[in-house]
Amino acid sequence: MTDVPLDFVPVPGVRLSTTAAGIKRWERDDLTLIELAPGGTAAAVFTRNAFCAAPVTLARHHLIRTAPRYLLINAGNANAGTGAQGLRDALACCEALAGVTGCATEQVLPFSTGVIGEPLPVVRIIDALPRALAGLSEQGWADAARAIMTTDTVPKLVSRRFVADGHSATVTGIAKGAGMICPDMATLLAYLATDLAVSPEALQAILGRAVAPSFNAVTVDGDTSTNDACVLLASGAAPLAPVTKLDSRVGQALAQTVSEVCRDLASAIVRDGEGATKLVSIDVVGARDCEEARRVAYTIAHSPLVKTALFASDPNWGRILAAVGRSGIENLDIDRVTIHLDDLCIVRDGGRAPDYTERAGGQVLARKEFAIRVGLGRGEVAARVLTCDLSYDYVRINAEYRT
Amino acid sequence: MTDVPLDFVPVPGVRLSTTAAGIKRWERDDLTLIELAPGGTAAAVFTRNAFCAAPVTLARHHLIRTAPRYLLINAGNANAGTGAQGLRDALACCEALAGVTGCATEQVLPFSTGVIGEPLPVVRIIDALPRALAGLSEQGWADAARAIMTTDTVPKLVSRRFVADGHSATVTGIAKGAGMICPDMATLLAYLATDLAVSPEALQAILGRAVAPSFNAVTVDGDTSTNDACVLLASGAAPLAPVTKLDSRVGQALAQTVSEVCRDLASAIVRDGEGATKLVSIDVVGARDCEEARRVAYTIAHSPLVKTALFASDPNWGRILAAVGRSGIENLDIDRVTIHLDDLCIVRDGGRAPDYTERAGGQVLARKEFAIRVGLGRGEVAARVLTCDLSYDYVRINAEYRT
Repeated sequence: MTDVPLDFVPVPGVRLSTTAAGIKRWERDDLTLIELAPGGTAAAVFTRNAFCAAPVTLARHHLIRTAPRYLLINAGNANAGTGAQGLRDALACCEALAGVTGCATEQVLPFSTGVIGEPLPVVRIIDALPRALAGLSEQGWADAARAIMTTDTVPKLVSRRFVADGHSATVTGIAKGAGMICPDMATLLAYLATDLAVSPEALQAILGRAVAPSFNAVTVDGDTSTNDACVLLASGAAPLAPVTKLDSRVGQALAQTVSEVCRDLASAIVRDGEGATKLVSIDVVGARDCEEARRVAYTIAHSPLVKTALFASDPNWGRILAAVGRSGIENLDIDRVTIHLDDLCIVRDGGRAPDYTERAGGQVLARKEFAIRVGLGRGEVAARVLTCDLSYDYVRINAEYRT
Repeated sequence: MTDVPLDFVPVPGVRLSTTAAGIKRWERDDLTLIELAPGGTAAAVFTRNAFCAAPVTLARHHLIRTAPRYLLINAGNANAGTGAQGLRDALACCEALAGVTGCATEQVLPFSTGVIGEPLPVVRIIDALPRALAGLSEQGWADAARAIMTTDTVPKLVSRRFVADGHSATVTGIAKGAGMICPDMATLLAYLATDLAVSPEALQAILGRAVAPSFNAVTVDGDTSTNDACVLLASGAAPLAPVTKLDSRVGQALAQTVSEVCRDLASAIVRDGEGATKLVSIDVVGARDCEEARRVAYTIAHSPLVKTALFASDPNWGRILAAVGRSGIENLDIDRVTIHLDDLCIVRDGGRAPDYTERAGGQVLARKEFAIRVGLGRGEVAARVLTCDLSYDYVRINAEYRT
């Protein structure tokens, strides 16, 4: 769990700082400020949970009106399920930051993560703003990756350099999340930035494409958060013409790099899933359409029986088979279904493969990373979902979360 | 967990026996035989899992052709995921019993429950048949309730007498199941019998109506089994005219009693859910239609975060709210949503109820049985799902199941 590199490349035009606002009774930095240079652009995707948090509502509203100068992120309190007071509290934080910096209130995007339903400690956040502003630095990415954590055990930080039109450019991103992970159009909190100049429309398109196979294809526990948000900033500090089209050479290079950073951050989130001891890729092939491929993959990924068997390194493949069978695929021909653990075939012709042995199955499941591969034998479409196992520690972490 | 009564009223015309066939390496009765008097009728509902077990396929096939004389049930091996050999094995058991008793092979219905994917020990089952036949008795219900158990910790047996046309009649039933519980048109294994004479059509209608709000409205872990089956037998031993219509006085009394027995058996299954320490009713009201009411109820009932909070007696209601929000109800007006724990209001007007206290919430969750009541405020339809909490023991039981 300690193989996540904390090396990173700073992004010119983007500065970060962290400070201890005392959101909860703890001794750690819990308030993160990200500053985008004037003239930069931003794109974002948010949770589809109907009970979305107050900061999600407000950030969405602000982003429609103008490009942001500041992202203000607190850990320890989700400001969700807080009704009208929650909106007033989120707005008060934005107004206070605008007052100190001279930007417009709409140029501040608020984000919160933590316990749902507690009032946001607005005064403590506002009191911390001068310290946060004083600490801004292009070197702040690693501290920010740590300060946005809640039940995460490792910070998630990914950095990539790429060459665009002969110049070197950068995409650096951080993310947090370990539980309530089944993102729907976004993940918990993720912040990426590039030093290229990019039009808002191109930036949103790049982010949308990157999120689908990364953050939107991972699950820890099937619980979609109220606070999911993923933001991509473009500072324009690099000496290159603005990207306005995805099919330009620079646009393609940027889109590719953003996708890679999102994919790496998303797999880091599953690897650090609450109580997780294994990273498991559920690969479904031979589906008629994307929806049924994803449905089968998610049914396996959410099955408590499959997840406890993964934890036990028990090749109890009957549970995988039962999950495929109950996933609601119409007219599934079970004689065409195949199930592999990595390259080991365990099910074909409607039953256990004759050459399969429990010992070989146990060897695959003892690995820290492996794939469950399901062939439906009814089409050409594939889908992949990343997930983890269900361990004693998942129960412990979530039974003790608020104590 | 020891409050399940093992008193019962025998059903004239129905005899049972149990014997130790040695399906697994254990010292216990694991083979159950149920005999129905000649002229009796039967109705059944089965799992909708596409990977249904060989005995389910065969029992369905036999039941279409004729009324059964024998139900042959083994615990310890599901005979599921066993392909063509599984079907041959199930048929061999039916043929052997037919050979010894002189009935037709189609008059034997096979049932299996246990580990998926292992070959059925056919020879051991056939060797045990003479002992099983010799032991048949109308007094065998309690032993049968024990012999069909797998990870169950208590037998489930419910018996009801009722008065029909001035005569006393009986419905007695047994069920098993503790994990892989999310029945879809049936539950794991349940066998009910009455001494009334009932036409096959009326019997099927009575069972269908009884199953919907009982076995089809409970969930332990969301995993629908490959082997679910629920059978209702009518022996005709009572000195009453056959029931052919549900709207007759006797038909109504029988339907009512069968529904009650199914409801009691279904709640006994959840109460004995793997690792369960609490029985929780999820009551959704104010829905536009039954589908959305059930969808919200099941989303809450399947949320690992809600279930671990229930285990911890932690009134972390934000998790309930997040589950409602992600259940996929279009245009949900969150300001109209209410959430109660029993009679305690925790959410209204889109946030925490002003008069709610954590202490009061914790008091409700400390109960062994309580209700989570969700009002959607958009219609008149209600649904109820029974579920249990997610504890360390659920992980232990399912991580160690095959060891």
